[in-house]
Amino acid sequence: MISREKHDRMANAIRFLSMDAVEKANSGHPGLPMGAADIATVLFTRYLSFDPKNPAWPNRDRFVLSAGHGSMLLYSLLYLTGYEDITIDEIRNFRQLGSRTAGHPEYGHAAGIETTTGPLGQGIANAVGMALAERKLRDEFGSDLIEHFTYVIAGDGCLMEGISQEAIALAGHLKLNKLIVFWDDNNISIDGPISIADSTDQHARFRASKWHTIAVDGHDPEAIAAAIEEAQKSDKPTMIACKTVIGFGAPNKAGTHKVHGSPLGAEEIAATRKALGWEAEAFTVPADVLDAWRSAGKRSAETRKAWEAKLEAAEKKAEFVRRFSGELEASLAPAISAYKQKLAETKPSPATRKASEDALEVINGVLNETISGSADLTGSNNTKTSQTHSITPDNFSGRYVHYGVREHGMAAAMNGMALHGGLIPYSGGFLIFSDYCRPSIRLAALMGIRVIHVLTHDSIGLGEDGPTHQPVEHLASLRAIPNLLVFRPADATETAECWQLALESRKRPSAIALTRQNLMAVRTEYKEENLCARGAYDLVPAKDAKVTIFATGSEVEIAVKASQALQEKGISTRVVSVPCIELFAEQSDDYRQAIIGNSPVKIAIEAGVRQGWDHIIGSDGIFVGMSSFGASGPYKELYKHFGITPEAVVAAAEAKLS
Amino acid sequence: MISREKHDRMANAIRFLSMDAVEKANSGHPGLPMGAADIATVLFTRYLSFDPKNPAWPNRDRFVLSAGHGSMLLYSLLYLTGYEDITIDEIRNFRQLGSRTAGHPEYGHAAGIETTTGPLGQGIANAVGMALAERKLRDEFGSDLIEHFTYVIAGDGCLMEGISQEAIALAGHLKLNKLIVFWDDNNISIDGPISIADSTDQHARFRASKWHTIAVDGHDPEAIAAAIEEAQKSDKPTMIACKTVIGFGAPNKAGTHKVHGSPLGAEEIAATRKALGWEAEAFTVPADVLDAWRSAGKRSAETRKAWEAKLEAAEKKAEFVRRFSGELEASLAPAISAYKQKLAETKPSPATRKASEDALEVINGVLNETISGSADLTGSNNTKTSQTHSITPDNFSGRYVHYGVREHGMAAAMNGMALHGGLIPYSGGFLIFSDYCRPSIRLAALMGIRVIHVLTHDSIGLGEDGPTHQPVEHLASLRAIPNLLVFRPADATETAECWQLALESRKRPSAIALTRQNLMAVRTEYKEENLCARGAYDLVPAKDAKVTIFATGSEVEIAVKASQALQEKGISTRVVSVPCIELFAEQSDDYRQAIIGNSPVKIAIEAGVRQGWDHIIGSDGIFVGMSSFGASGPYKELYKHFGITPEAVVAAAEAKLS
Repeated sequence: MISREKHDRMANAIRFLSMDAVEKANSGHPGLPMGAADIATVLFTRYLSFDPKNPAWPNRDRFVLSAGHGSMLLYSLLYLTGYEDITIDEIRNFRQLGSRTAGHPEYGHAAGIETTTGPLGQGIANAVGMALAERKLRDEFGSDLIEHFTYVIAGDGCLMEGISQEAIALAGHLKLNKLIVFWDDNNISIDGPISIADSTDQHARFRASKWHTIAVDGHDPEAIAAAIEEAQKSDKPTMIACKTVIGFGAPNKAGTHKVHGSPLGAEEIAATRKALGWEAEAFTVPADVLDAWRSAGKRSAETRKAWEAKLEAAEKKAEFVRRFSGELEASLAPAISAYKQKLAETKPSPATRKASEDALEVINGVLNETISGSADLTGSNNTKTSQTHSITPDNFSGRYVHYGVREHGMAAAMNGMALHGGLIPYSGGFLIFSDYCRPSIRLAALMGIRVIHVLTHDSIGLGEDGPTHQPVEHLASLRAIPNLLVFRPADATETAECWQLALESRKRPSAIALTRQNLMAVRTEYKEENLCARGAYDLVPAKDAKVTIFATGSEVEIAVKASQALQEKGISTRVVSVPCIELFAEQSDDYRQAIIGNSPVKIAIEAGVRQGWDHIIGSDGIFVGMSSFGASGPYKELYKHFGITPEAVVAAAEAKLS
Repeated sequence: MISREKHDRMANAIRFLSMDAVEKANSGHPGLPMGAADIATVLFTRYLSFDPKNPAWPNRDRFVLSAGHGSMLLYSLLYLTGYEDITIDEIRNFRQLGSRTAGHPEYGHAAGIETTTGPLGQGIANAVGMALAERKLRDEFGSDLIEHFTYVIAGDGCLMEGISQEAIALAGHLKLNKLIVFWDDNNISIDGPISIADSTDQHARFRASKWHTIAVDGHDPEAIAAAIEEAQKSDKPTMIACKTVIGFGAPNKAGTHKVHGSPLGAEEIAATRKALGWEAEAFTVPADVLDAWRSAGKRSAETRKAWEAKLEAAEKKAEFVRRFSGELEASLAPAISAYKQKLAETKPSPATRKASEDALEVINGVLNETISGSADLTGSNNTKTSQTHSITPDNFSGRYVHYGVREHGMAAAMNGMALHGGLIPYSGGFLIFSDYCRPSIRLAALMGIRVIHVLTHDSIGLGEDGPTHQPVEHLASLRAIPNLLVFRPADATETAECWQLALESRKRPSAIALTRQNLMAVRTEYKEENLCARGAYDLVPAKDAKVTIFATGSEVEIAVKASQALQEKGISTRVVSVPCIELFAEQSDDYRQAIIGNSPVKIAIEAGVRQGWDHIIGSDGIFVGMSSFGASGPYKELYKHFGITPEAVVAAAEAKLS
């Protein structure tokens, strides 16, 4: 039992480390760590099940600091509880180049940082995914192996962002009762009191989405403890509104927006030391306080050891270990090869969204860890296979999530599932709506995690729905995101290969752009090798080609037809399929130069904007694609209208050659 | 008074036009128009104040079909009430290339389409902006000139999207009581019953955000009428939950997701004709029904005429007419020239976010129509000037909106304000968070409306906040959007010029990327001409330049310093400032070629990704910028770390030349 006095001193350790680090960095956010220190102290010293010496323990409780600007709260906790990655020197180097203690918590910088937060609302939505993963894996592996809580500290900003509504509605619907959110209810945002921008009754709002809510004084340890215990017993997710004072302890600035995002200044820090009776120097934690914290960090070591024993004895141990290691089943590659062989024989010509479904039928049969879904476009995205029954609030034996019309919440939940481990999430949505979840896709790329976005209806080829639904700039804008693989397969074989590459890419997310319309088979011979792995390859080789045509996805068919027409006219023409520009950029200079080649005429065809193609075709190359928004009409007419046809390609090539 | 029988026949006219048009197009969404026909009939025949012969009447009620997939509801209404743009032939040509009746309602295709909808949740958030504009302009011009309602039909999908939460929270906070939202509560989305993805109590949710809510049978005209009258009297925005049957009238498919997004089929249409007692042929409206509708379309003609008389007599007539015409004050250009003259004398070196504030101080002094704000980053975005006091729920005399941490809701509300007319909205946010509101920025570009996004902290130059907050791909991804101007000014003078261009661009939106860090003045001589208007221009000319350096924003300073160092080494070097790639692309071939020039070494410097630069520097050009995410640290160290320095540019140029 921790006395109130000891609690206060432990919480104050967080406050002073945070104040001192922000002061030294001369930037950062002291207000939240000071205000939420009591909540975090109660959670980490009494409830959170974690082991700093074994931070990757799969059955640990997850803790997400959704209000990522308060990063010093997390870094203080990691240092105090004994995570080796966060030393006192790291705290001293807060926000300095090369430190693990970035301005906002960065996943991968240090163990104990469960996700990257900062862009508001992402963390709470990640946590929904973690809680979903827990619930799903508990169903699959039993509660001996997986049963834990997911805790979140969220601020007003998180709750104002729309993504939070998607997240809480999904969590409430799915009854994710092991999700516990502390709302740091401090009444302050950057612009001033919350009342200048918001009048929401958050309790009523959460309850409307089927959450349990509790209100407590966020500086009363026993009230916080009682709330956590009540929440742990709830059959719904719980929001604990903790009334706090931002910058708690700073005699002149606490409770104001001045303490939100700026150093307190030496004078105010000195005054706070006095007010809180803290005599230790900057970056120094009194030995008794540090000892108490380190003891708290050892609380769950026995539980973890006992868990290891259960894992040893578990029937599904091998599967569990493999799943959490991120390794794929060895039988996946042969299964895909066999499927490719079949395709080479049957030469089907489905839409690539349907080809994706067929590939997934193979993949989901081999991998139990894929968890699929759609943002209310199941029949259009073709992401549901025979293996993936729907998850319902009362039955998590399925592998398919009806995310609702919530792209952003979906993508962020997928990030949470991937971070949790044990699952490979893939989504379903229209390519156009990647814009709705772009912040989460970006964070997946920044974190380097394996989530796979299935993005169908990938061009004007979707036809009548018109420009609001026709992506034109989206391939370019997704390709602009570092560390994201953007695949656009041309037929069923390429679709299978791209899926394989996405699954094998453990350290980065993928987006797979797929058509609504049917496409002819362009890969008609079986090759064991995954040709898409090099990003671009010779599909139709030609010696001394006068014309080289580069194309992706649905436009490869147009390239092949144009090349045939040009060949018939005696013009030697090569076709290069470019299913993944990012992988192509990673090939050797020799390979890239060989693929780009020396044809006097280089043409790229893609039913999107030119941006990003000049490095392949040169700025004097011919681009056949879009330079405006699309239009509503049958897709074949649209292709003609916008001049994306074999005839237009042939004419452009001939004009250039003459 | 319209009898129940007449009402039913009028509503059925919508139903059959919708069914028939979807059937002929062989694609589209009949379910919503059939289900919501009664709501729309009551609204358009008894309450909506509008004049099809004068569709731009500024004081008309606004009607927004947020559930844009139900476009045939809107097209039917426009045809039936007598808008000339929508003839029966347009209805017949639903979803055909070149028709005004696109798959989703497209602003500009026909009068009466108040906004482009389809991407869910956008319409309801646009409507919040329209209601905000009404409230603001009513305060400014008096209720003789502006006092009207804004009505919305939203579906379950709109309410599941996170943006809807941002919108309703903002509307509730600001007490926009002339906003009335009909929720088409039909329990169905594409995947099936709503219950598979959502358990939200929408009444409780809206009430939590300070809305009034009413529940009615959406097929009972008198109940709908009573609800509208109650809503009109409310001191809060009102959500009317209308329980409807999707595809109402179709005997075998109504009430199921089969009727959501597919043609009913000839058989079911025949059965519906029988069930509803409708004998007219396809695309034919019985004369008595059409007459009744056309009469409804004339209901407000007298009101409009009376309004014209009031406008004639109004003291502020000239200002009102100018504002709704979209013309700027003639005194703006001279005011900006005078300001530029002052800058040339004082040569200040502020951050461009501060330069933007200074330019806005001039602009807001001349233009009363600018309405500014920030997504809770007022002090960081510098969007508040001496003229723009804060709007509060009870006082709309201000010109500054505290949008809260709601970028998406902000951007969509800005679209609504611009569409309403009389105002020029500009935002405040970080460039990184343009991702959060990208769907609304895209729609502004698609619609061609004047909204201006102030996007500060535009690179790694923001420093310690780290990679979560450092835009790297955002300039490229915004430039990929057709019809959007992306400005990145290099100093205070360019900032003023870019502001002028953004304001003068009446038919497209602008994004202005601005720095957190101070920048030296690169434009030190006064020029009357707006040099930024051509998108790129010779900043440091040089004869027979061996090296040409292209740069934007904060990197122009680096380019200038590098050019000085190269000149000192005897290497003739030109610097081209590129504040707006889109405007540059629109210049004559001669101008573009002259600016690109023939230097053997071409270098571009931008602290973002290379994508989009090859068409200027060529694929063999040197790019000095980012190829990964950023890092957390003091910004000067980051620039060194990532090699974006004058020294690096000089070294690269020398290496290439040797």
